[in-house]
Amino acid sequence: MIEKPKLEVSLSPALFHLFDIKDTVVVIIDIFRATSTICAALHNGAKQVIPIASEEECRSYAALHNPEYITAGERSGKIIEGLDYGNSPLEYAPEVIAGKTLVLTTTNGTKQLHLAKSAQQIIIGSFLNLDVICEYLIQSNQKVLLACSAWKDRINLEDALFAGAVVSKIQSHFQMTCDSAAMVSALYEQSQKQTSLLEFLKHSSHYKRLSNFGLYEDLAYCTTMNLNPVLPIFDGKALHI
Amino acid sequence: MIEKPKLEVSLSPALFHLFDIKDTVVVIIDIFRATSTICAALHNGAKQVIPIASEEECRSYAALHNPEYITAGERSGKIIEGLDYGNSPLEYAPEVIAGKTLVLTTTNGTKQLHLAKSAQQIIIGSFLNLDVICEYLIQSNQKVLLACSAWKDRINLEDALFAGAVVSKIQSHFQMTCDSAAMVSALYEQSQKQTSLLEFLKHSSHYKRLSNFGLYEDLAYCTTMNLNPVLPIFDGKALHI
Repeated sequence: MIEKPKLEVSLSPALFHLFDIKDTVVVIIDIFRATSTICAALHNGAKQVIPIASEEECRSYAALHNPEYITAGERSGKIIEGLDYGNSPLEYAPEVIAGKTLVLTTTNGTKQLHLAKSAQQIIIGSFLNLDVICEYLIQSNQKVLLACSAWKDRINLEDALFAGAVVSKIQSHFQMTCDSAAMVSALYEQSQKQTSLLEFLKHSSHYKRLSNFGLYEDLAYCTTMNLNPVLPIFDGKALHI
Repeated sequence: MIEKPKLEVSLSPALFHLFDIKDTVVVIIDIFRATSTICAALHNGAKQVIPIASEEECRSYAALHNPEYITAGERSGKIIEGLDYGNSPLEYAPEVIAGKTLVLTTTNGTKQLHLAKSAQQIIIGSFLNLDVICEYLIQSNQKVLLACSAWKDRINLEDALFAGAVVSKIQSHFQMTCDSAAMVSALYEQSQKQTSLLEFLKHSSHYKRLSNFGLYEDLAYCTTMNLNPVLPIFDGKALHI
């Protein structure tokens, strides 16, 4: 009998080192809002997304004044000075982003992405491409690690909930030996009692932070399932579909 | 209006540094089996429990051949050579432990205890003293951090489930701003669909490990609520009730 591959969940970059990522497909998760924005931009025709850790590096792209590049990033809910756009997926309509390269600086998502660099493959997950991710992971038949970007290493509810949605949908195809995977799956099942994912997330710290910035529409968008059915893959520098 | 104190949850010693423990009551949790064993021993009349990090230090107590001390510890399910007893709460019946000092070496629980040393107060939690812990935390009206000992920094289901039981019971008395607290509370609610806590924990990695060692009775004991209604408090060296 051939053993099923393992399915594991890292709930914070501070726990990521505990997992062996050799021969593993790592799914980067940053629901509010980096990985949602990446899915939206690529679905709306972006040529690629370059994730950047530092504001400075992002500004150096802006300084090129190349119309092919759109630079984007926020800190504390405001667009970083010198950049074109913010972190909202709603900013990247086809007329803005089609054919362009999005250079995006984020805090948590980019950190998690760089930690995963030695994985066999890195892909980007959000509720916007949930089913595509699940189908791909089942088909790949490889070991999987769902990597939550969290908030400054603190576990957050929305990333865990997305990991739980994936685990619930694909667990029968995998070996389940990871307690974090069991935990997020129970969390997702519990969320199904609510009228919507967003309703369930109302008690999360990030919901409070972003709704204080007036970003309710972003929160609603980022919790809509399968709106952007793309599979963003990291090639070591940029994300493509 | 006086603000309610915060209630937070650290799911692993690797996340513990993210929490401010000044003016905080920290509850150490290591359900399988250190904190359960501590509650059982103290309830059955132990004078005190001294938690020890290293096997060597524990053996140095054994070398004293003082009948007042009982030395205990296991690695991989076997009693450490040179020590008297193992980590099972079932070993500490009153006729064994009454009036004695239990010198206990554990891996995960002791590590978590030492990380918490600068807290205002450290107490020991397990399902065996669940209600006592909850009543104490409500009465204290102090900031609370529930600290899961985990397994070599990996989050485990049973510690998270206990944290969830506490959160579910006391959350109305506290400020709930911690996503991990919301997560374990949902986990506990989900567990209530099962016939027993142990049934829910059957999918946990620790259940599998310990039941492979033939320790099913330990697992059943450690998930029995309120069997040892004591409040173990750490004085910097030992635990007393």
